[in-house]
Amino acid sequence: MRNLGTHLLLEMVGCKPEFLDNKEEICSALLRAATKARATVLGNSFHKFSPQGVSGVVVIAESHLSIHTWPEFGYAAVDVFTCGDRAMPHRAADYLIEAFAPTRHEIKAIPRGIPGPNPEMMVSERPTWSPPAERGWM
Amino acid sequence: MRNLGTHLLLEMVGCKPEFLDNKEEICSALLRAATKARATVLGNSFHKFSPQGVSGVVVIAESHLSIHTWPEFGYAAVDVFTCGDRAMPHRAADYLIEAFAPTRHEIKAIPRGIPGPNPEMMVSERPTWSPPAERGWM
Repeated sequence: MRNLGTHLLLEMVGCKPEFLDNKEEICSALLRAATKARATVLGNSFHKFSPQGVSGVVVIAESHLSIHTWPEFGYAAVDVFTCGDRAMPHRAADYLIEAFAPTRHEIKAIPRGIPGPNPEMMVSERPTWSPPAERGWM
Repeated sequence: MRNLGTHLLLEMVGCKPEFLDNKEEICSALLRAATKARATVLGNSFHKFSPQGVSGVVVIAESHLSIHTWPEFGYAAVDVFTCGDRAMPHRAADYLIEAFAPTRHEIKAIPRGIPGPNPEMMVSERPTWSPPAERGWM
C-alpha cells in the first residue's frame, strides 16, 4: 500500500448519557480535537436526534472527524481520519477520551491509501504529492 | 461486541483525475449513494482544494458517508457508515464504484458497536433501542 493517511476508529463506552446528548458540547469537543491533531477545520455539520443521540462531522484539510452517539447505551462511535505527515490523529483521540471520560474504549488504527500490489502502474501522471495540510482550499 | 452498524472503507484507484477534482459531481454522487443505501440525508459539507482534490461528508440519519480524493493519484478514499437494520451500505458502495469507475478497488467492512466482553454491565439505564432510521431529528 502507498500510505496516505491514518484512520482511527474509536469506540467509547460508559460515557455520561447527558453529555452524549448535548450537541453543542459534542461539537465543541470535536472542534477542539481537530485543533489538538494540528488539523485545519474547513466545515462541520452536527445534528441532534429525537428522542436522543447526536451525529456530526468536522471536515478538515487533512480529511475528517466524525461522531455518532447512543446516549441510551453510553456509547459513542468516533472516527479521526488524517492524511499527511503533519497531523497527529492520536492526539485528537486522546483528547476525546479525556473529554468523554468513557469507562472503556477501543481504538483501531487503519492505514488508508492506494492498495498494493503495484500502485506505480495505475495512473499515468504522477506529480509530487503535496500533503493536504500544505494545500490551500477554495 | 454489541453490533450497532457497519462501516465500509472503500479505496478506489484508477479513477479519472478530472472526475476526482469535480466537487459538484462528487457531491451529487455521494448524495445519490446515500439514497441507494436507503439512508436519510441530514446535511453535507464539501470542499475543493487548490491545486487539486475534494473532501466531503454527507451526514445521514444512519451515520455518514465521506470522501477524500487525490486526483494526482487517481485515488479516492470513501467511507460508508450506517447503523440500524434498514440501511444498505453495500448498495452505496456498489453505486460509487459504478460512478467513479476505478480500475481497482478494495473494501473493508468493519462492524461498529459496543465492544465486548460485557456491554450489559456498562450503563445503568437501557431503554429499548430504536434504529436511527426510525428516529426523528431536531
